[in-house]
Amino acid sequence: MRRVSVRDALAAMAEFPLRMAARENIAVEASDGRVFAAGVHAAESVPPFTRSCVDGFAVIGADVARASEASPVTLRIVGDVVMGKLAPDGLVRGSCMRIPTGGALPAKADGVVMVEDTIDQGDVVEILDGSDLDDHVTREGADVRAGDLLCEAGTIASPAAIGMLAAAGVDRVEVYRAPRVGVLITGDELVPLGAKLAPGQIHDSNRVALSAAITALGCEAHSYPRVADDRTAFDAAFAVALAENDAVVISGGSSVGERDYTPVVISAAGSPGVIVHGVRAKPGRPAVLAVIGDKPIIGLPGNPVSALVVFETLGRPTLLRLLGISADPLPWRASLSADIVVSTHLEHRIPVKITRDGNGLVATPLFGTSAHMHILGLADGLVVVPEGVGAFAVGTEVDVVPYTRRNR
Amino acid sequence: MRRVSVRDALAAMAEFPLRMAARENIAVEASDGRVFAAGVHAAESVPPFTRSCVDGFAVIGADVARASEASPVTLRIVGDVVMGKLAPDGLVRGSCMRIPTGGALPAKADGVVMVEDTIDQGDVVEILDGSDLDDHVTREGADVRAGDLLCEAGTIASPAAIGMLAAAGVDRVEVYRAPRVGVLITGDELVPLGAKLAPGQIHDSNRVALSAAITALGCEAHSYPRVADDRTAFDAAFAVALAENDAVVISGGSSVGERDYTPVVISAAGSPGVIVHGVRAKPGRPAVLAVIGDKPIIGLPGNPVSALVVFETLGRPTLLRLLGISADPLPWRASLSADIVVSTHLEHRIPVKITRDGNGLVATPLFGTSAHMHILGLADGLVVVPEGVGAFAVGTEVDVVPYTRRNR
Repeated sequence: MRRVSVRDALAAMAEFPLRMAARENIAVEASDGRVFAAGVHAAESVPPFTRSCVDGFAVIGADVARASEASPVTLRIVGDVVMGKLAPDGLVRGSCMRIPTGGALPAKADGVVMVEDTIDQGDVVEILDGSDLDDHVTREGADVRAGDLLCEAGTIASPAAIGMLAAAGVDRVEVYRAPRVGVLITGDELVPLGAKLAPGQIHDSNRVALSAAITALGCEAHSYPRVADDRTAFDAAFAVALAENDAVVISGGSSVGERDYTPVVISAAGSPGVIVHGVRAKPGRPAVLAVIGDKPIIGLPGNPVSALVVFETLGRPTLLRLLGISADPLPWRASLSADIVVSTHLEHRIPVKITRDGNGLVATPLFGTSAHMHILGLADGLVVVPEGVGAFAVGTEVDVVPYTRRNR
Repeated sequence: MRRVSVRDALAAMAEFPLRMAARENIAVEASDGRVFAAGVHAAESVPPFTRSCVDGFAVIGADVARASEASPVTLRIVGDVVMGKLAPDGLVRGSCMRIPTGGALPAKADGVVMVEDTIDQGDVVEILDGSDLDDHVTREGADVRAGDLLCEAGTIASPAAIGMLAAAGVDRVEVYRAPRVGVLITGDELVPLGAKLAPGQIHDSNRVALSAAITALGCEAHSYPRVADDRTAFDAAFAVALAENDAVVISGGSSVGERDYTPVVISAAGSPGVIVHGVRAKPGRPAVLAVIGDKPIIGLPGNPVSALVVFETLGRPTLLRLLGISADPLPWRASLSADIVVSTHLEHRIPVKITRDGNGLVATPLFGTSAHMHILGLADGLVVVPEGVGAFAVGTEVDVVPYTRRNR
């Protein structure tokens, strides 16, 4: 199979329809961080009634049209508008009501005079300025009209968005259930966390990092027992993971080479099978993208830094399709603290750490072999050096694609 | 009380020590998104043994030092290194072992010859190049040494970081428990979501947005029943919220003015009391920052857009102190799609929506009064126009501070 670019790899996958995540109907308060499965429309107008945006007096326009400091108009005060209630009686000519910010305009009132433009004498009030009455009220529906589309399908609910929905009378929303993603790790040298290492063994760190990244995307990670580097065991484990999940992420141990069964096992399990094997990117050469039925399979390299970078590059956009999300994460713009020089025949992804300086953000490339774990923990995101470019000089302003993570 | 700048308001708060969140010890797999309460050190070296980074032959250096294509050296193959196991016997002069990527070097081996530089004849192998032996192995501890500080206290665990910790043999970590934050909303006009609005009433959207933002920061939001605009009720509700939580966030209904009891109620409840009342920022004029004992209190304006913006500006950094976090969120850099013109005597925060174009990010200012709810749902973050500046022209590159949110 010829190696393709990352862009072409994702485009090749896009040809195959995937089964969208199931939906559920939940309370809007519980929806923060979830993905809307349908457009959300306003149930009520905002504001739901015409209200005052100042403290003042609700008046009839014709009464105060000519009022000025030189010739004030005196109105009878017939009551106080109470917050949360509509005044039982409306105004009649020559009368007005005290109204607080947010209060509902009584019937027949045309607008509000600010308290600063009045002299309150208890039973009556002198109106010193009757212009701009309409500037001091927010008309029913001026902000949102019942039925307006407020959030599109495929957007992630934020605190601000669910506040807006709540104001517009939406109390239940349709969101996607988290797709189940099977995590299958192969490698005879791997031992679980907490277990004592025998000589030659290493801890199974990819399971931990990949499960967390999958969860942070809004999926549910289901981790399976380590698979021995053995074709029969791998076939059996993959069949179970495929049956029990909406997608499967596979990572080898650090062992690659002759015993890298991933594409073989996938292709034997169903069709259309392997769509992409190897991308023209570093890391990415051993990556696999596959579809069986309508479920995506993502095969990652075994070494931890490469596994996470390839997950971000190919796994993230593939899994987010199940939630109807096609947008890439917004990049940071940062100035390189050191030259990046790489070969020109592959697209390279370099982990960087971001710090601030007085003028903006600085991206420090974290070089080292892809086997260097400590790079993982320090990096905030990735700088992409396109194929054919090969170098960015110190001081270049680059885009940094953030790693997937929870909160903030 | 004189109004101070946002910077001075936070500096004034910083004078008062706050009670740090409690700690707990949890599995590293469960720590994604949590905040480390202590520096995390490597329990084991990475790699834990000297291993091969290629497929090849483990050899004794003195045997192959002079090997070349012109005069190959022939070695006896005494076995295969098995992944996850240390070879039971070491090498003797004139012998070698097949070794896969990631395999542990057998005793006495000095390094590895890549398979590409050998001719494997079954019982024996011809070595065509014996240089660079050390380039093909990763020495024990070359990546991380046992005891190294891997994550500092006050950093948020990411998928990558917990992968690194797992590799270094860390299986439990000390994290902060989520601080409890009481959410107290006042306003007689407010009705819960799902309830039918009577004329004059509005839905309690601040409770929903603020609770979600508090949760996204890594705190636990505890929402209390709506407080009537009545001093006695407010005193009683505040006393309960203060006793039951590590911090309290208060927001008025849309009613302000004479019945804004927030600073009075706080000051009556204990000392030192109100530290800041009103900041020289828009929004922010009615904001309150207070401390009672060692608990922070944050008083927000009632209108929803202002409440969330002031929460991000003053509430976020104050609550994050309880988790030992002092860093501001990394801003996006974006080009303004329209002029921003504001008054020069206050620092202004303008909500913006970010989109991409071919060259980078574009920030579209979302103008409108602070009562406009729909601005809430559309905005990705805030542009700060400093006091005395007053305007940014279309096309200016500005920093956009992201709103607090969960995931991605």
